[in-house]
Amino acid sequence: MSVPAAVGLGTHPGVAMARHLTAPALVAAVDRLGGRLAEVCGYQIGARDEHGGHTATVGGKLLRPAFTLLSAVAAGGSPRDAVPAATAIELLHNASLVHDDIMDGDRYRRGRPTVWAHYGVPMAILAGDALIALGFEVLGEKGSVTALARTLRLLALGQDRDLEFETRRSVSVPECLAMLTGKTGVLLGCACALGAASAGAPDEWVDRFDRWGTHLGVAFQLVDDLLGIWGDPAVTGKPVGADLRARKKSAPVVAALSVDLGLARTYASPGDWDDAEVARVTGMIERTGAREWVRSEIDRRTEAAWAELDDLDLEPAARRDLHTLTAALAVRDH
Amino acid sequence: MSVPAAVGLGTHPGVAMARHLTAPALVAAVDRLGGRLAEVCGYQIGARDEHGGHTATVGGKLLRPAFTLLSAVAAGGSPRDAVPAATAIELLHNASLVHDDIMDGDRYRRGRPTVWAHYGVPMAILAGDALIALGFEVLGEKGSVTALARTLRLLALGQDRDLEFETRRSVSVPECLAMLTGKTGVLLGCACALGAASAGAPDEWVDRFDRWGTHLGVAFQLVDDLLGIWGDPAVTGKPVGADLRARKKSAPVVAALSVDLGLARTYASPGDWDDAEVARVTGMIERTGAREWVRSEIDRRTEAAWAELDDLDLEPAARRDLHTLTAALAVRDH
Repeated sequence: MSVPAAVGLGTHPGVAMARHLTAPALVAAVDRLGGRLAEVCGYQIGARDEHGGHTATVGGKLLRPAFTLLSAVAAGGSPRDAVPAATAIELLHNASLVHDDIMDGDRYRRGRPTVWAHYGVPMAILAGDALIALGFEVLGEKGSVTALARTLRLLALGQDRDLEFETRRSVSVPECLAMLTGKTGVLLGCACALGAASAGAPDEWVDRFDRWGTHLGVAFQLVDDLLGIWGDPAVTGKPVGADLRARKKSAPVVAALSVDLGLARTYASPGDWDDAEVARVTGMIERTGAREWVRSEIDRRTEAAWAELDDLDLEPAARRDLHTLTAALAVRDH
Repeated sequence: MSVPAAVGLGTHPGVAMARHLTAPALVAAVDRLGGRLAEVCGYQIGARDEHGGHTATVGGKLLRPAFTLLSAVAAGGSPRDAVPAATAIELLHNASLVHDDIMDGDRYRRGRPTVWAHYGVPMAILAGDALIALGFEVLGEKGSVTALARTLRLLALGQDRDLEFETRRSVSVPECLAMLTGKTGVLLGCACALGAASAGAPDEWVDRFDRWGTHLGVAFQLVDDLLGIWGDPAVTGKPVGADLRARKKSAPVVAALSVDLGLARTYASPGDWDDAEVARVTGMIERTGAREWVRSEIDRRTEAAWAELDDLDLEPAARRDLHTLTAALAVRDH
């Protein structure tokens, strides 16, 4: 449902209350994303203009929040208690608008280009996912839901960084590691934290399992990145040099590009590479020491991971299983 | 992170436990979606083949669930208690794979076409959203999170029906109303239910607010559909006949098509319509009685909505505000 502007609902007390109570919560939630996603999601809710600048308010009539707040009051409660729910509903509503507009090919909404029309389909997919994540996060329930919602938000931010790196000539090693943490570390961290939490472990244990899994997730991704360049196609199932041919900015490439300007020029040049060119570029990367650096980073991450659990009194058989599983996954390039 | 097949992790006790405990939960969650989304999401998790048939198992190594279950055991708990969390993590992981594959333009994963490559981008966007919804649903926490997750799932199912209708010549009136319930009813129902819940209302009140809002959401969408054909462009902000020119299967059109076969042929014909043709088609729809039928359906839905709240002892001022807000939104075509 959408509502024509001329109905003039803006003065209805429920709508005015929704604007007063939920608009600031919406803006705060979206701003918390930071970076491009804050801008794109802010654009969707009308809190940002087409150039990323903050507007004075949010768009839409906030009808659903008005119904949430008025329902709370009608049922004998306070509207303030219903603000998280009202905010969550409006975020979910906007998420579905962003995604539906892509699917329906709709180019205009509320008199402006839709998110996909203005920022492209990839950003619109990510923005919808981020708005869903924020919806569950603002509900503010403790425990596994909040952890899962936070993870979904960080995955979207990690993927956004990854997409952005593709358009940049230069990416620093710390930026690359931060992106890997978002794209693969946080999900494994959340997997481990939720496991510990479902065992009824104390918060400090849950946090340690989270950091342990996050470090390991980054280490495993670095193993993947090595295999993407030096892996045996019979083992990886991918053709030799597939990552290089696609000009992926994987960790070894980022490390190598940061020291070899000739390689940077080669990598930025368009066109398909034959096997000889792939072999030549692979050699250039190896000579920068990038392969060794990634290997040592895998070791550092693995050590940092286990340091988190070292002094916890874990169930011995499960600790052994976690060790063997980790060791199998951290088998480095073949 | 992905893992080469030849590492042979399938026999690791943690991975075997994850397969034993979480694969059935994953299949059950996805099957519960029903229809095309069950098929598409099942394809993503490897529980369905390219023709929609059930496979013997699920794809992927289930590494993240293995870490969740082993973390639970290591922290002194039972793996069974961690199954909902492990399932949620794997669903979220698959959601992010489906969406990332669209953004990255990746056409193959696990030796098969990716979801967007096989089913198209719109289905892949929806499948990712549905997998996120299931992830929060399987966590099985009571209250507002489950309600929000269910709503996200039903929104995806409603949008799927809407997309599917576009490709069909004939849609029945009950199918159309069911689609509207999913696309716009459930979100307003959830908005109202969460409001009542945040006031600490008893479950029966929350359910009644849910049904009240769901009926109203459908009524408001029907108002929208009338405005889309008979609305004053100065009021709606949309050009006259925009919905008809786009061949939208809105409720009045579906009702009219079900009785006028000549209109069905006209509507199925391609090509742009000029103002005269739009006026002619509008007249055909009106003569079927579809406009009157939609008006009476709005009245029926509005009455059914208020019947839910009639015998509840609501706070009087808020009840009045809800009445005036509802009345303003149910202003019918101009």
